[in-house]
Amino acid sequence: MIVSLLTDYGHEDDFVGVVHGVIAGVAPGARVIDLTHGIPRHGVRSGALVLARALPYVPAGVHLAVVDPQVGTERRAVAVRTAEEDRLLVGPDNGLLSLAWARFGGVVEAVDITRSPHRLEPVSATFHGRDLFAPVAGRLAAGAELADAGEAIEPGELEAIVLPQARREGGELCAHVLSLDRFGNAALNVSHADLLESGLALGREVGLEAGGERYLAIVTHAFADVGAGELLVYEDAYRNIAVALNRGDAAATLGLAPDDEVRLRGRNSAEP
Amino acid sequence: MIVSLLTDYGHEDDFVGVVHGVIAGVAPGARVIDLTHGIPRHGVRSGALVLARALPYVPAGVHLAVVDPQVGTERRAVAVRTAEEDRLLVGPDNGLLSLAWARFGGVVEAVDITRSPHRLEPVSATFHGRDLFAPVAGRLAAGAELADAGEAIEPGELEAIVLPQARREGGELCAHVLSLDRFGNAALNVSHADLLESGLALGREVGLEAGGERYLAIVTHAFADVGAGELLVYEDAYRNIAVALNRGDAAATLGLAPDDEVRLRGRNSAEP
Amino acid sequence: MIVSLLTDYGHEDDFVGVVHGVIAGVAPGARVIDLTHGIPRHGVRSGALVLARALPYVPAGVHLAVVDPQVGTERRAVAVRTAEEDRLLVGPDNGLLSLAWARFGGVVEAVDITRSPHRLEPVSATFHGRDLFAPVAGRLAAGAELADAGEAIEPGELEAIVLPQARREGGELCAHVLSLDRFGNAALNVSHADLLESGLALGREVGLEAGGERYLAIVTHAFADVGAGELLVYEDAYRNIAVALNRGDAAATLGLAPDDEVRLRGRNSAEP
Repeated sequence: MIVSLLTDYGHEDDFVGVVHGVIAGVAPGARVIDLTHGIPRHGVRSGALVLARALPYVPAGVHLAVVDPQVGTERRAVAVRTAEEDRLLVGPDNGLLSLAWARFGGVVEAVDITRSPHRLEPVSATFHGRDLFAPVAGRLAAGAELADAGEAIEPGELEAIVLPQARREGGELCAHVLSLDRFGNAALNVSHADLLESGLALGREVGLEAGGERYLAIVTHAFADVGAGELLVYEDAYRNIAVALNRGDAAATLGLAPDDEVRLRGRNSAEP
Repeated sequence: MIVSLLTDYGHEDDFVGVVHGVIAGVAPGARVIDLTHGIPRHGVRSGALVLARALPYVPAGVHLAVVDPQVGTERRAVAVRTAEEDRLLVGPDNGLLSLAWARFGGVVEAVDITRSPHRLEPVSATFHGRDLFAPVAGRLAAGAELADAGEAIEPGELEAIVLPQARREGGELCAHVLSLDRFGNAALNVSHADLLESGLALGREVGLEAGGERYLAIVTHAFADVGAGELLVYEDAYRNIAVALNRGDAAATLGLAPDDEVRLRGRNSAEP
Repeated sequence: MIVSLLTDYGHEDDFVGVVHGVIAGVAPGARVIDLTHGIPRHGVRSGALVLARALPYVPAGVHLAVVDPQVGTERRAVAVRTAEEDRLLVGPDNGLLSLAWARFGGVVEAVDITRSPHRLEPVSATFHGRDLFAPVAGRLAAGAELADAGEAIEPGELEAIVLPQARREGGELCAHVLSLDRFGNAALNVSHADLLESGLALGREVGLEAGGERYLAIVTHAFADVGAGELLVYEDAYRNIAVALNRGDAAATLGLAPDDEVRLRGRNSAEP
């Protein structure tokens, strides 16, 4: 059985290693895959986006995610089963899992694991990844029933993340930054179809407005289609339209952060 | 058989990958768990603390640790068996392993592996992780006898780390920073019992003195119990009392480094 | 079967995790070893050097490497079999694999996998690690024939990297920086034999010239043979002569970058 991990723990400390250790103890046969531990600290939405786009490439199994600014408070911890592919998602009930379960048809079974019989006693106030989430995920990977991991709750009670929606305004497409990768490429809440509807086909020049500044980019297929230091608008590997700077860092250059507005306008518009 | 790894190699180079490769070659069936490779360069005491607190969460096996500023000199390399749980610890004889074996009842068998028959010839002057420690750990994981890994030595000859001890001075608890995590949380050499004996119960305000500056913190259970940007004193996940800044970096803000003195005083004292 | 991975993906994003996921999907029994994901972005030569020096320590298997600035253009993707040890190397045809296959006796069979039947459709323009390289590597690890992964090509057509060569000039050895590690140690294109031929035996003082500045170093065996803050010239763990600063960062202190010229001269020369 696969157990995948996604956290904001980073690699400087032993947090990730200890989670592996706990899982190895309760599920010696599980194969553990680290999706990433580089989610920005407390970046619940960022973690939710990455989990939802990565899981389709990972065999179905137990998928543990921990980005948990409310650890130690009364926030609920949950484990859920998705409608499609029978995946088990484990984590805090703060929306982190919600984009992933939406990707797999929603939740058909949910349990509150806050006081799970699988947890390690005493549960610390700050490291539920070790004391609660890892033992629950490990037991599920070892074959335990979801219903035995905690108390059944209604799927409708679960917290979910609502993403901003792009909209057309006059000749412009008013979009938002969904996420940034370490290269400074900025994924927008825009699909290829949105782009085409706005008249922005491959090869077109597009005016970008972000942070009050205007830039010029090319709609293209690959980074190498534009010169070094030039901006491009392209469909990224997860099928979001994204902004990048060939051989550079678009987020740093344009000052982009998650949720920032980015306006796109075809260059046959009146604007110079 | 589990092989756990802890080093200061970082993830930028191929050092960790090569150690994995060597272990896979001599112990194809071993399950390797990376505890962390983020120990500060040459941070022997930091590595010793992390190893001792992480191992109780990892199934017993072969536990390799390499933080080795004296590599290539006459410092000894060792492998030892712990009294409890029969764990095998492998690494340089510079105290790195000592807090871990103390946690498991001390050493019942020790061998000097400096000229181990398992080493890869020629042994380089700088990468004993690859040429000496990984092959020894791998052979032990594959079932080789500890006695065959080198020459028997007396456990009493092994190097050990001595930690600073907190002490009461008047109304103050004079403590020291044991370690910092990547979030800037600072673990002190103080237990929950020490704190209670000093009259610092949950909910109390506590005066902190560090680096000649005074601060105010709250003794609390969880980060979210105080406001963003407020200092807290809490029991961390490894049962050390620690200082943190909610949603911030206490080590950076207070200028804390390992071994620094931190004085704690209950706020019903005369001090304003 | 072993699958080793080397990329410039870093650990902040989910790129590495997704590659693991894809491989787990097509080759559930494969053992995946991360050599490193810390190759500098677009550092094809750096990746080639690291791959060639690491693979001799990794059991023979499928060795995937992705450092791919031309992704999405017409650059070819390839899989090759080495003459010695029957290793399978998979990656872009930009020289990244070439130092590794040279290390194992050259290429005896090569296929162009650009339109491999194993690829995941639709292939993105930017993430061939996921859509092309990982599925091909996974299928090979699961037992697929190399010939079935794409179209046969002549080994002589493959791109290869040519390294700069050190040379003697008067009393000097004119060398170049091959690579830097995260500690700032700089490997040169010089062997121990080259050093001896230049009269630079163990214990000798050596004048270094780099970036127009002159420095003094000691030819030694181990870091600890010189004082903290002193320069040393030594044989590194991969049998290259290297420059280091004990307890410091030679690359930062001397301003060294890959390909930079470094001139070495024995101190019995006329130069002060």
